[in-house]
Amino acid sequence: MTDHKRKRREGGRSAKIASRKKSAQIEAPRFLSRKIPCYELLSEEELVSIEEHADWILQEVGIEFWGDEEALKLFKDAGVTVKGNRLQFDKGHASELCKTAPKEFEMHARNPARSTIFGGNRLVLGPAYGPPFVYDRKRGRRQGTMEDFRNLVKLAHMIPWLHHTSGTVCEPVDIPVNKRHLDMVYAHIKYSDKPFMGAVTAPERAEDSITMARIVFGNEFLESNCVIQGNINVNSPLVYDNTMSGALKAYARANQGVVITPFILGGAMSPVTMPAAVAQAHAETMVGVALTQLIRPGSSAVYGNFLTTMDLKSGAPTFGTPESTLATLAVGQMARRLGLPFRAGGHYTASKVTDAQAMQESADSMFPAFLAGANFIHQAAGWLEGGLVVGYEKFILDSDRLGMLHRMGDGMTINENSLGLSAFKENSPGENFLGTEHTGENFETANFRSEIADNNSFEQWEEDGSKDAEERAYERWNTMLDEYIEPPMDPAIDEELKDFIRLKKDSMDDEWY
Amino acid sequence: MTDHKRKRREGGRSAKIASRKKSAQIEAPRFLSRKIPCYELLSEEELVSIEEHADWILQEVGIEFWGDEEALKLFKDAGVTVKGNRLQFDKGHASELCKTAPKEFEMHARNPARSTIFGGNRLVLGPAYGPPFVYDRKRGRRQGTMEDFRNLVKLAHMIPWLHHTSGTVCEPVDIPVNKRHLDMVYAHIKYSDKPFMGAVTAPERAEDSITMARIVFGNEFLESNCVIQGNINVNSPLVYDNTMSGALKAYARANQGVVITPFILGGAMSPVTMPAAVAQAHAETMVGVALTQLIRPGSSAVYGNFLTTMDLKSGAPTFGTPESTLATLAVGQMARRLGLPFRAGGHYTASKVTDAQAMQESADSMFPAFLAGANFIHQAAGWLEGGLVVGYEKFILDSDRLGMLHRMGDGMTINENSLGLSAFKENSPGENFLGTEHTGENFETANFRSEIADNNSFEQWEEDGSKDAEERAYERWNTMLDEYIEPPMDPAIDEELKDFIRLKKDSMDDEWY
Repeated sequence: MTDHKRKRREGGRSAKIASRKKSAQIEAPRFLSRKIPCYELLSEEELVSIEEHADWILQEVGIEFWGDEEALKLFKDAGVTVKGNRLQFDKGHASELCKTAPKEFEMHARNPARSTIFGGNRLVLGPAYGPPFVYDRKRGRRQGTMEDFRNLVKLAHMIPWLHHTSGTVCEPVDIPVNKRHLDMVYAHIKYSDKPFMGAVTAPERAEDSITMARIVFGNEFLESNCVIQGNINVNSPLVYDNTMSGALKAYARANQGVVITPFILGGAMSPVTMPAAVAQAHAETMVGVALTQLIRPGSSAVYGNFLTTMDLKSGAPTFGTPESTLATLAVGQMARRLGLPFRAGGHYTASKVTDAQAMQESADSMFPAFLAGANFIHQAAGWLEGGLVVGYEKFILDSDRLGMLHRMGDGMTINENSLGLSAFKENSPGENFLGTEHTGENFETANFRSEIADNNSFEQWEEDGSKDAEERAYERWNTMLDEYIEPPMDPAIDEELKDFIRLKKDSMDDEWY
Repeated sequence: MTDHKRKRREGGRSAKIASRKKSAQIEAPRFLSRKIPCYELLSEEELVSIEEHADWILQEVGIEFWGDEEALKLFKDAGVTVKGNRLQFDKGHASELCKTAPKEFEMHARNPARSTIFGGNRLVLGPAYGPPFVYDRKRGRRQGTMEDFRNLVKLAHMIPWLHHTSGTVCEPVDIPVNKRHLDMVYAHIKYSDKPFMGAVTAPERAEDSITMARIVFGNEFLESNCVIQGNINVNSPLVYDNTMSGALKAYARANQGVVITPFILGGAMSPVTMPAAVAQAHAETMVGVALTQLIRPGSSAVYGNFLTTMDLKSGAPTFGTPESTLATLAVGQMARRLGLPFRAGGHYTASKVTDAQAMQESADSMFPAFLAGANFIHQAAGWLEGGLVVGYEKFILDSDRLGMLHRMGDGMTINENSLGLSAFKENSPGENFLGTEHTGENFETANFRSEIADNNSFEQWEEDGSKDAEERAYERWNTMLDEYIEPPMDPAIDEELKDFIRLKKDSMDDEWY
């Protein structure tokens, strides 16, 4: 980066920020505020059992880092027993190493009004992450493309209930594997001004993502603030491979965020019984968080969890199941004990289409994560088919439900107005309340209004074309894309990003798998 | 009833019960056991505010009984202030009058193995109540008939997760209004051996329902046991009409059960703000329960609640909304304070078809009722279109989800097996757990297995015909009806029931509205 360029950019950014501040009309919340209690499934005694079991796993079974000498050395220097690839922790040591990780942290967006906060009673919501396929009602199921990626980022940008545009909203398989991260990160920056995640598929791609964030935010700002995150999956059971630990280290070294997520289907990547899986996941997450703190104390780490069941006869993952619901509630309690921001849940489903199964499983996956106190849910919109597919219509339906969760998070306020004192004084028994002054006064604020549910009479619904929820959602996302307005960006930054991408792409041959 | 007939019947019934006892192979639970905590939304202070507000409503606004001198006199004799139709209660008096109602009670089925228990940590589940229309995937939406009624009772009988066959599973509009209760009660008795509800549409129809129960259970047994219930809706706001109070009195007088349910769409039948609606509903329910106890102390009464929102622009009822979710959680707390068995919730939806909206709203209606500690949910299967329609496919999908709730109610057991101690000892990091002995030992019991979810790969799903959830459910209910086996019934009782119905029908002209 030349000095000239930097100068031009910095000036441009300041001007940009000023103009944004002037015109800011912020309707969308920066996060969901949860004013209702978390659900406490397990007793203190049961939680201690799981905690002790996690410690036993780390001491007796151990956890391995494959192909990462640096990580092994860091742990060894911190007093962990290292034998070959395997780490063994004394009781309580792993959680001790997590203590420098912040309980709460701000994650900055390029539009300051979109910056969000992780932790406490806040919930940050983002869309699907990872699907190689996309689905829409008209074109059906097909491989994801960069055009789909942009569309999904645009929708995530527009939806007020999504505070974060997540990361790989779909795999753009029309772009070479070794180059697509550049286009993906660019799309997040260009088509939205919300926080987002960078690449983790190779340490150098993580570095590229961070470099692009440096171009947007400036070196100095980035050095002391979280502006980009890496989504780190543990290779459960009890393994970190060097792709994941490499990406983890890249983000932590730059003082950027990571989300540490054991990916567990009970019975395969953990024992089949959920308490075992919860303990194992707890052990795995703590070790990942510990590594971030050994690399850079005080860097931000989210305690993540992806834990569900499988059909033990076919091996297929299953979602919204009672066992996964209970497990999610328990994991939330474990995360709160550790005091770290907690990621879990999503609108998960195994369904192939946007049908009754899809939303039943999604609701049953999301509700427990919400009540478990999740601080980050980044698979909150679009999931179909166990995450292999992101559906445009599902994206809309899920997002509408996120609006409902915002309202639910507000809880119930008990006061003279909400108790309807004046309404009861106005009306006698048997009289309808629609016409009361109290109803008029509370008309606008009383109820969340879904954008997509059809509550009309059968006759009206029939007259409107007998549309099911998927069809209404299809119309909605098409209208939204028509109405999309690109958030302003300093042309100098845009140019610099494009230059960086061009140079990077020119330096590599295409790789397709 | 002649002495001869009674003799024949009584002998027959004893023989019948003996043979049933011998061959009893009970797989279906009598109720769902909730071993997980209820969710506590509001603080003690907030609950006291609502309780005091309910008392204020009963004291200052009052509640009316229309056309029921007996009820007015009973309350007056109990010390309630009566002015015209209106009752005004001193603070705390209504709840005081509820104190003789049982906290728990057994409801007997004609098959003793199907008898269930209301209250405590138990949840009794029953299907839809009241829809004039039915829907199935092949024939579409149409008026309900007696054939549909029988089909739905048969399905409810077969589904292990329904413990009760509810009441008017659909309105059989092909039978005259003044006679259909006879055929409905007969269908419940004949095609299932689970507990059920009788008619409430007129006091004499309630009496007929009770008479039919007497034929089945015998006078003496009925006199001291709950074998039939009446579903009493309050004419909210703050009115009981004499149809409802008449039916209430008929059931209570016979020592049978009632479920007292304010039917409230916030903004119409109550103030638009939910805390007001919760307080009003609490007031209304207490007065209904009080009347049962003035008629017959110790008779069983369920604290019911039907409280949801409406689209304030169109007036259409809305379901699974965040406001109704919160309200349901709060009502549960109020019911627990009063200590009565609590009815709320159901798989509610405004959707016209068995689509994504239908199951999203249903899950979001049911989950809070479950966590609110509901003891009875009798709209748990089949609802579509705000209860105007019962859907055959929805019936199946909802019931499958009830199975999941049973498993969720079991909670998580933390012990050496569930913590997977042996599995962790058997495996090293990175090794799949499918082949461990621990997985084998827990294979059958680890996970609830849905009968209807499709968790297969896209390719397998496509090969199976690309069926959505509704289509799979359509096949399932058709297969079930093909496989239905009528539960045995003493022919003498059957004959006596038919005689009663014949005589009753012959005594009336047909009424069609």
